[in-house]
Amino acid sequence: MPLSKQMAFTNRPFLYDLALSLKSNVTKLKMWPYFDIAHCVMCCLAVREDLGSGSIPFSRKHPIACWLSTMMVVFAGGFLAALFLGEPLLEPFRNTQSVLLATAVWYAMFYSPFDVIYKLSKFLPIKIVIAAMKEVYRCKKVYDGVNHAAKLFPNAWMILFITGLVKGNGAGFIKILERLIRGVWTPTAFEFLQPSFPTKACIVASIIFVLDKKTELISAPHALVYFGIVIFFVYFKLSSLLLGIHDPFIPFENLCCAVFFGGIWDSMQRAVTGGNKNAESTAKNEVRATVPH
Amino acid sequence: MPLSKQMAFTNRPFLYDLALSLKSNVTKLKMWPYFDIAHCVMCCLAVREDLGSGSIPFSRKHPIACWLSTMMVVFAGGFLAALFLGEPLLEPFRNTQSVLLATAVWYAMFYSPFDVIYKLSKFLPIKIVIAAMKEVYRCKKVYDGVNHAAKLFPNAWMILFITGLVKGNGAGFIKILERLIRGVWTPTAFEFLQPSFPTKACIVASIIFVLDKKTELISAPHALVYFGIVIFFVYFKLSSLLLGIHDPFIPFENLCCAVFFGGIWDSMQRAVTGGNKNAESTAKNEVRATVPH
Amino acid sequence: MPLSKQMAFTNRPFLYDLALSLKSNVTKLKMWPYFDIAHCVMCCLAVREDLGSGSIPFSRKHPIACWLSTMMVVFAGGFLAALFLGEPLLEPFRNTQSVLLATAVWYAMFYSPFDVIYKLSKFLPIKIVIAAMKEVYRCKKVYDGVNHAAKLFPNAWMILFITGLVKGNGAGFIKILERLIRGVWTPTAFEFLQPSFPTKACIVASIIFVLDKKTELISAPHALVYFGIVIFFVYFKLSSLLLGIHDPFIPFENLCCAVFFGGIWDSMQRAVTGGNKNAESTAKNEVRATVPH
Repeated sequence: MPLSKQMAFTNRPFLYDLALSLKSNVTKLKMWPYFDIAHCVMCCLAVREDLGSGSIPFSRKHPIACWLSTMMVVFAGGFLAALFLGEPLLEPFRNTQSVLLATAVWYAMFYSPFDVIYKLSKFLPIKIVIAAMKEVYRCKKVYDGVNHAAKLFPNAWMILFITGLVKGNGAGFIKILERLIRGVWTPTAFEFLQPSFPTKACIVASIIFVLDKKTELISAPHALVYFGIVIFFVYFKLSSLLLGIHDPFIPFENLCCAVFFGGIWDSMQRAVTGGNKNAESTAKNEVRATVPH
Repeated sequence: MPLSKQMAFTNRPFLYDLALSLKSNVTKLKMWPYFDIAHCVMCCLAVREDLGSGSIPFSRKHPIACWLSTMMVVFAGGFLAALFLGEPLLEPFRNTQSVLLATAVWYAMFYSPFDVIYKLSKFLPIKIVIAAMKEVYRCKKVYDGVNHAAKLFPNAWMILFITGLVKGNGAGFIKILERLIRGVWTPTAFEFLQPSFPTKACIVASIIFVLDKKTELISAPHALVYFGIVIFFVYFKLSSLLLGIHDPFIPFENLCCAVFFGGIWDSMQRAVTGGNKNAESTAKNEVRATVPH
Repeated sequence: MPLSKQMAFTNRPFLYDLALSLKSNVTKLKMWPYFDIAHCVMCCLAVREDLGSGSIPFSRKHPIACWLSTMMVVFAGGFLAALFLGEPLLEPFRNTQSVLLATAVWYAMFYSPFDVIYKLSKFLPIKIVIAAMKEVYRCKKVYDGVNHAAKLFPNAWMILFITGLVKGNGAGFIKILERLIRGVWTPTAFEFLQPSFPTKACIVASIIFVLDKKTELISAPHALVYFGIVIFFVYFKLSSLLLGIHDPFIPFENLCCAVFFGGIWDSMQRAVTGGNKNAESTAKNEVRATVPH
């Protein structure tokens, strides 16, 4: 941590000490294998939900395609980051142990007798714990992604940001390809057309980590920033699971769209050019209001 | 320049001097940022034309997909060359400044009040200047592509040629993927099925640059070769814009197809096997005459 | 060869000598250019068969797309292995000679007068020889793939296995992309959804080569293992061509599916939960029995 940041925190020692102790706790927190298992379980759940009612017959008829598709979801961030940073695409498969772990979880989730593992993982209290663990893991992956890219491209801010983003939510960006492996083609499902909440959260987290790493804009200690993001991830995941709040970014987005992406100018133009375009514009606005939800 | 080429030009000093002075002028010509801006403007125009009448609603509803799609067109050659040469795929994003410039042009082209920047760039005299600048830039990119590849793979002629080609007209080859980002899937739009004029021109330019670099076949000085290609690019772009001549390669193609790609043999076979295949063959020939236009 | 393996074979000297002599013969066997030609001919045949009756008109109308599509099939394994191992994607084009050879074969197969070369290569005795040569070449490519990956990633078993597999049957995995170049989109044609016999054979061969390289499980000498796989490849290719036996793996697959991938548990579950699911399950089983053939 730079000296300036340390100085800024000498007058609030309690918060600083808390952050430091939290950080040392978290860095000691053994990610492997519990958080990896939670991540794999959530990925398998996502694949099974995407397959819908056809998940069991599909897993029986096409076990290899099912395995490959699940592996792509599990290691999506790693594949994309490897491709973007010029590393071997199979980099995530280098660690045979993590492939075996993911394979074991996939096997348990799809082929357990009476589907008991799947049903257990859908049981709400268990699902909450696993989902929370996955969010902690996601935050770590965004952080690791930004740091890894920063070693290779110290001054390329865009690359740092993109690597953090795809490490955090790779599965979203790889979805079209992953479905193609299962023989399903959904060309309109590209993530950025209707970004999901994890994508937006990873955008914010990645921007914050990049700013924290490369600038002095964020005066809080690194550990506090990291914890803030972990808590933000876990909190919104739990509110989505328990309260059904799916996207707290929508008000900000609407404001942003109105100010920067043409909302105000379009209204002004409509006012100037008169009512002949009203019908079209109203339809347009309605679409904007409904689609990103 | 090899000595043999210098010798060849001692007896035509005027042309040689002209070429040299032109070359020193061009190498001094500041590409950044004016030519980059022209390139970005042409790319944004291409994206907006591809979106058709839906460009304004799309840019309001999906700003991130619109930005990403435009960036892919702007840096298409860089992405493809990086992938083909084993460099990090995000190499073109390394230079944050050029990403910011492209983003600024994108913002101005899509979200300017009353769409004034877009309308200006469509105004014929301005469009002519921008299009001509883009062709100068395109020629430079083909040249840089061939040279960059020649540093990495000195004897791999195919790689030199392909790198030059994709650097010059990357947007054409990436079109399917770029439309997919916007949720539009056009599987029959692969560039080589109906190569556009820029593709053909880049093929010719890339072959000439490779021959000029690796062989003694072209006895003109490098600078003259470079200028010839720049003038060729600009001339045909302007004739396409002003006179509507879209593809001066068609006579050569028809000749080439007839001689090398089966035209003559097919006719002979038809003559030998008699008239039973006539209907089919005539239909085939008509298609060949109409499709590549 | 490790000492333990040598020791194991001192008491069966005949087999060991035979294997050694075979190995020295094969390593002396000049692969270039005869086996390369056989490989290219088989690839062109595959492309023409995939194009069906439209192959001649397509090759006349779109010679560049036809060439590119054929090159992708010929060098499919090389492209995939280069991508997966982080090498330049155009690595297979580095050797200009092999590209020229492939281009010459492509030209002869598509544009020969009266289609004579194509008809010759379809003539059964010639086809058998070429197909057998291609299988020998395929085995060599799996072996080279595993060895090449083992140099880069000594302990990453998964990467060794995948590289061997894609080097051996790259064309299968690239088929969707290769068709897209020809303007044909078949999203349900991913190889692993209905793996063909070459894919399954390459999976087995790649696993055996990896085990032979990294473990002591296989006590036979390397040369014997290699020859066993060559003979296995050639034998089943010939039985497919001559006797129409297309997939000798099906009994093993059905057994494996029943034991590991849910067959037995599903039957038990059906027995426990009673007859209410019978109709659905029967339909499912029928599908499993018919689709992978």
